[in-house]
Amino acid sequence: MGALEEIQYKPIPVRTLLVEMKDLSELMIDLAYSSALFHNTDLARDVLELEKKVDNLALLLKMNVMIAARDAKDAKDLLGVSLVSSAADEISDAAADIAYIVLHGIGIHPAVREAFKRVEEQLGRFIVKRDSILSGKSLRELRLASRIGVDIIAIRRGNEWIINPKGRDRILEGDILIVRGTSLGIEELGRLAEGNLRKLED
Amino acid sequence: MGALEEIQYKPIPVRTLLVEMKDLSELMIDLAYSSALFHNTDLARDVLELEKKVDNLALLLKMNVMIAARDAKDAKDLLGVSLVSSAADEISDAAADIAYIVLHGIGIHPAVREAFKRVEEQLGRFIVKRDSILSGKSLRELRLASRIGVDIIAIRRGNEWIINPKGRDRILEGDILIVRGTSLGIEELGRLAEGNLRKLED
Repeated sequence: MGALEEIQYKPIPVRTLLVEMKDLSELMIDLAYSSALFHNTDLARDVLELEKKVDNLALLLKMNVMIAARDAKDAKDLLGVSLVSSAADEISDAAADIAYIVLHGIGIHPAVREAFKRVEEQLGRFIVKRDSILSGKSLRELRLASRIGVDIIAIRRGNEWIINPKGRDRILEGDILIVRGTSLGIEELGRLAEGNLRKLED
Repeated sequence: MGALEEIQYKPIPVRTLLVEMKDLSELMIDLAYSSALFHNTDLARDVLELEKKVDNLALLLKMNVMIAARDAKDAKDLLGVSLVSSAADEISDAAADIAYIVLHGIGIHPAVREAFKRVEEQLGRFIVKRDSILSGKSLRELRLASRIGVDIIAIRRGNEWIINPKGRDRILEGDILIVRGTSLGIEELGRLAEGNLRKLED
């Protein structure tokens, strides 16, 4: 568990907190494995930051669960929530362990990296530059999945993370895009984010 | 860690073992969350079985890493492998914890289940019956993703698991299919596996 900001109790529905923990922990695993395999320290740092978020969510969830439980029946209903949240927290800790490996400069055996590279789908991480045609557009307008075979699985905007963004979500200048797709599609998205490729073919 | 069979040392490349551990641990998380949300004890039992497999792989990997390391340079190269494998093992333990919750009859708060159900993609688990038109066909022939929007993410055949099956892999009678897709597509696949739906539209 990393350093924590002071925890402020906020009344948030446990469902909202649990869904967010689940989504974040799943994303962290993808990011952590990718950071290890491609020795990408930016991805590793993202993982450590997300771990702090998950830790905070776990504490907030614990508080909200306590307050939500009024009697024995509530407590039993909420026990599952609390245990699933603990598991999501453990998963995020394991992802952070992988990220630490990367940041400590411990490499992955080249043979292993080769093996993982053969997987068809890979992750990419790109900053959207001022000149990029992606900037200001919604995911629905861009239709990246059907056009270049790439899914945006998260958008990092400063300290905010939008996990599994929807069609109405917009890409802004300075956003960091975490994307999944074929290596060709990812390479193309990198050039679009950089501003070197100025149009999207249908 | 569940009960283990006696471990037999087999010389298997560490890359093969690590890729299998990574794939299994990722699948287990999906299965575990789904088992919790839909209170599906079959999925939960699958998770516990896969956990034993991951534990076995982790031990085999440890032995192979020891034997592969001849000098300090090898040891440093292989440290990353060993640490990533530990993290995959922790992830699989967390998934198993979720499965235990389900098998102990601890429910998930209905509000939370509602929240997860809204997610577009769901998992399904179906046994392929004798009359099913899926039986004997390769995934390439079936083209389930483009026809009904469903991906087969694993095939369980007795004690064997085929994770992320490829186009050339065939579905056999008695196979258990773990699938991901829209609720409509999953419902259709269920009827195909059952043998109640006898043709696939294009």
